[in-house]
Amino acid sequence: MGGAVVRRRYLELVPLAEARERFLKACGKLGVLAPREEEVHARNALGRVASREVRARIPSPPAPCAAMDGYAVRSADTFGAKPSAPRFLGEGSFLPVDTGNPVPSPFDAVVPVEEVEGAPGGIEVRRAVAPGQHVRAAGEDFPEGATLVLPGGTFTPEAIAACIATGNPRVWVKRKLRLLFIPTGSELLPPDAPLQPGKVHETNSIVFRAHVERWGGEAEIHPIVPDEPGLLERALKEALEADYDLICICAGSSKGRGDHIPGLLSRMGELLFHGVAMAPGKPTLCGIVGERPVLGLPGYPVSLWVSMRQFLKPLFEEYYGLPLEREGKVAGVLKRRVHSPLGTREFVRVRLEETEEGTSVIPLPGGSSRLSTLLFADGILEVPEEVEFIPRGARVEVELIPRGR
Amino acid sequence: MGGAVVRRRYLELVPLAEARERFLKACGKLGVLAPREEEVHARNALGRVASREVRARIPSPPAPCAAMDGYAVRSADTFGAKPSAPRFLGEGSFLPVDTGNPVPSPFDAVVPVEEVEGAPGGIEVRRAVAPGQHVRAAGEDFPEGATLVLPGGTFTPEAIAACIATGNPRVWVKRKLRLLFIPTGSELLPPDAPLQPGKVHETNSIVFRAHVERWGGEAEIHPIVPDEPGLLERALKEALEADYDLICICAGSSKGRGDHIPGLLSRMGELLFHGVAMAPGKPTLCGIVGERPVLGLPGYPVSLWVSMRQFLKPLFEEYYGLPLEREGKVAGVLKRRVHSPLGTREFVRVRLEETEEGTSVIPLPGGSSRLSTLLFADGILEVPEEVEFIPRGARVEVELIPRGR
Repeated sequence: MGGAVVRRRYLELVPLAEARERFLKACGKLGVLAPREEEVHARNALGRVASREVRARIPSPPAPCAAMDGYAVRSADTFGAKPSAPRFLGEGSFLPVDTGNPVPSPFDAVVPVEEVEGAPGGIEVRRAVAPGQHVRAAGEDFPEGATLVLPGGTFTPEAIAACIATGNPRVWVKRKLRLLFIPTGSELLPPDAPLQPGKVHETNSIVFRAHVERWGGEAEIHPIVPDEPGLLERALKEALEADYDLICICAGSSKGRGDHIPGLLSRMGELLFHGVAMAPGKPTLCGIVGERPVLGLPGYPVSLWVSMRQFLKPLFEEYYGLPLEREGKVAGVLKRRVHSPLGTREFVRVRLEETEEGTSVIPLPGGSSRLSTLLFADGILEVPEEVEFIPRGARVEVELIPRGR
Repeated sequence: MGGAVVRRRYLELVPLAEARERFLKACGKLGVLAPREEEVHARNALGRVASREVRARIPSPPAPCAAMDGYAVRSADTFGAKPSAPRFLGEGSFLPVDTGNPVPSPFDAVVPVEEVEGAPGGIEVRRAVAPGQHVRAAGEDFPEGATLVLPGGTFTPEAIAACIATGNPRVWVKRKLRLLFIPTGSELLPPDAPLQPGKVHETNSIVFRAHVERWGGEAEIHPIVPDEPGLLERALKEALEADYDLICICAGSSKGRGDHIPGLLSRMGELLFHGVAMAPGKPTLCGIVGERPVLGLPGYPVSLWVSMRQFLKPLFEEYYGLPLEREGKVAGVLKRRVHSPLGTREFVRVRLEETEEGTSVIPLPGGSSRLSTLLFADGILEVPEEVEFIPRGARVEVELIPRGR
């Protein structure tokens, strides 16, 4: 320790779009985006993405069944029946049925209960029925072979019900991407541990896991790795032995003493970029080690959030081939001038306020270290690279922050 | 069995708004809507609704810490420092720190790494820092006592991280409503069972559970009860012994032979309504048995879906005090005339098609027995009670159907 410690500087900052492209390209090259699938019980497929078309293996309903409560009959037996001249049907020539009950041959129609009176030894039918009337034909809902879910479609509750009704108790879904999250930092305590002086709780893994799972991934959280090069190297080597699609290392990618990750990645493999021209989220980096992509995520909570949305969300969207979270945008009037360095894409947390004149967009003060700016924000105002400031009073579009349920 | 079977008719149909009011009122009277809470680990609170305000018990960060990588110093020691006249600090008068590391007293500022050069026996500081510069003060993100989540607020990933960072490893949330779902019907097989002739798979419980869980409830699924009065009565009595907020009985509430639920509820308690003036979903009923609300849900899949959205979703919204699923509406041009009986609220499943002239709204043919109409629909067109038809070419508003993720 002392003054002789060598400190690394950022390599050149890479524009966000280019950094994202390098990351996604590396993931593609390394097979992360290749289609992989697994078979699961349809009941467990909620929210999963279909990897194959699902077709009805059996028709639904599987056989003719009553569409109303009443009596299954041979329609020919009822011809000419009317209230003034009911037809008598004796035992064996009718069958009481409730909605959903099978209508077995030779019966071919159902007389609704309202059109029938009891009579000694049978029933009196007061209105004729046509062949097939009040009967749901086999396959009326889904004929055999009907497409239920297309590849790339999401299994909704209704789709799952349809699968089960048509002889598809198991379905093929895209395998979830498996992400490892390695929190680093000697000052960190596990979220459950009691607080100690000079320490803070590690909470980034909570935010990571929640978003990754919502986007359709599996997140495994590695124990906290203190800022010692040997330990992280060992953790990384172990992780490479396992079956993760992507290894995310959190914090330790800026310029500090403990920030040895860029060097480690360069030594163990290839560093694709280190430092992205966005704020928050600048200390994002990416490398390839042992044929596996490694993403370095910033440790400040707001930076982490921005970086995840800019790098991980597009990864899931590309893997699944569908857009995630259509949260929508809101337009409003900017209530405070916003500055951003030229060449940097800035993500400003804003509060929205409904006023008589419309929606007000109020930038929240505070840096990327402040989780509170994210917690109390309603949306994100993006300032493009070529814009140095947006004046007060400008009409701007804000991306709403997705909220829980 | 034979002609002498007595068949019940619908009691008078109740308008939807009134039926819903009776149901919610009964739930209110019976304590279902009363606030109840439980304490959970903050890590397990994702998506739950806060029952109490959460405040920071300790500040975050808990102590001053470095906002940049560099050297913790006494700011007074650096006064006057500039590149042309750096200040030398010897061992003990500085401390190398990384972002997030504590800045212990008497140090009160951080000199960024870029402004420091190593020197024999110490460091040379090339720029002065002011007291507090590049230091995150204790409580900068959340001061002690700061409000993190208000009662009625939803725990997002970020809110959970904030709770853990501020000494709130456990939080109070509204208890989930507990719903029992009793599927009835002699023709039903459990979703997992192999198909048998004359039988169909019970799939309504899958749709029920998925929606109830999404709305913040707990769903327990009862084994299938065949259409025999004694069996359902026994199941209902057992259910009353348990701790459910609401008992839902599926099917068996229309007019058939096995449809003895209205009679059963009248005998065991009070029938609040039987038959709602809506389509699909007419055979919805509600009663009170043993101080417990009982909702009879229709057996046809589309009817069930509509009835759940019209009765259960408002129950959850009232219990939690917040709107669920802001799915949004879409306007478009109706491509086929739609009919609906006067006095009935009709929920027409429609497909949306984007054309050069805008959005086309195409009603899907097929009755409420057809799950396919729901599966392939994009939205719902509501036809109010006082409207008998909507002409082709009319501009209509469609409620989008919420989809999976």
